[in-house]
Amino acid sequence: MDGKAVVAISDRNRCNNRPMKTETSLVLPALDPAAVPSRTTSIYPTEELRALTVGRSKQALGDALGLQTFGVNLVRLEPGAMSALRHWHTRQDEFVYVLEGEIALVTEAGEQCLRSGQCAGFPAGKADGHHLVNRGNGVAVYLEVGDRLPGDRAHYSDADLEARATRGGYGFFHKDGMPY
Amino acid sequence: MDGKAVVAISDRNRCNNRPMKTETSLVLPALDPAAVPSRTTSIYPTEELRALTVGRSKQALGDALGLQTFGVNLVRLEPGAMSALRHWHTRQDEFVYVLEGEIALVTEAGEQCLRSGQCAGFPAGKADGHHLVNRGNGVAVYLEVGDRLPGDRAHYSDADLEARATRGGYGFFHKDGMPY
Repeated sequence: MDGKAVVAISDRNRCNNRPMKTETSLVLPALDPAAVPSRTTSIYPTEELRALTVGRSKQALGDALGLQTFGVNLVRLEPGAMSALRHWHTRQDEFVYVLEGEIALVTEAGEQCLRSGQCAGFPAGKADGHHLVNRGNGVAVYLEVGDRLPGDRAHYSDADLEARATRGGYGFFHKDGMPY
Repeated sequence: MDGKAVVAISDRNRCNNRPMKTETSLVLPALDPAAVPSRTTSIYPTEELRALTVGRSKQALGDALGLQTFGVNLVRLEPGAMSALRHWHTRQDEFVYVLEGEIALVTEAGEQCLRSGQCAGFPAGKADGHHLVNRGNGVAVYLEVGDRLPGDRAHYSDADLEARATRGGYGFFHKDGMPY
């Protein structure tokens, strides 16, 4: 450990110096999400399916921090946007925590409204398709966490779609097993 | 699926009904952290070590949601309190996201101040002991996420302490291998 580097970090951004937030520049293992690129793309296999995710953007915080065993995304939904098509995972546990706005959580049982500071969790293997929809007029922001156990599949409740985890990411299939 | 149950959930808590927050009652897979018990206990093996975690409380959101492959805690630090003794994990990836207040992140390189909306991540195996300290006058609140891979060990930077994961939780040892 280089003594000079220690001083540099300590001087720049100690809590008790209280610099303006815009003046701080975090270094790993700390991270300001503002420094993480945002993606609006979808991995769904058809243009029609990808169109359903318009208005959704994700920042991969976990990847930016070098985490491997689980992913953490900061997700922003514009009014009318959805998290994903309604689905459930066979191996992956999922967690969401609402940071801003209101989000409708849709499951087989109906809808519930998650507000800032509320959360939801989807244990692997529970066959209850879920997704989040921003039905409000303002932006909604949430954190999503999912593990990366091998062999996961996602079953989609309202589409002829199944996702299967591979080393390179998810591959998509019709429900009869035919690949897209 | 019982049709009546669907209506009950939908009527009670749709986003567009906008009931008072106090009137809502989320049901799994949704969860209001206010419904989750808070613990202030520590698993450290001595009274002296446990005393270092005074002012810290945790709500196990992930457990309450039935998640198994990773844990999610909502942690509250009173002024002066710390997250844990400074440590790093051999197998477990860790993530923290600040929700309220300011928190000093202490690592080998020094201190950085994490504010609301900022985060940090600690990849498994990176031998850089870290902890969070509330050096301010107000409460600090953050989310912490950690996976649950078997075989994890935690090495403590500033104490004669090592934790080893077992089926029943962590066991504690001196650095020479002697159990506490």
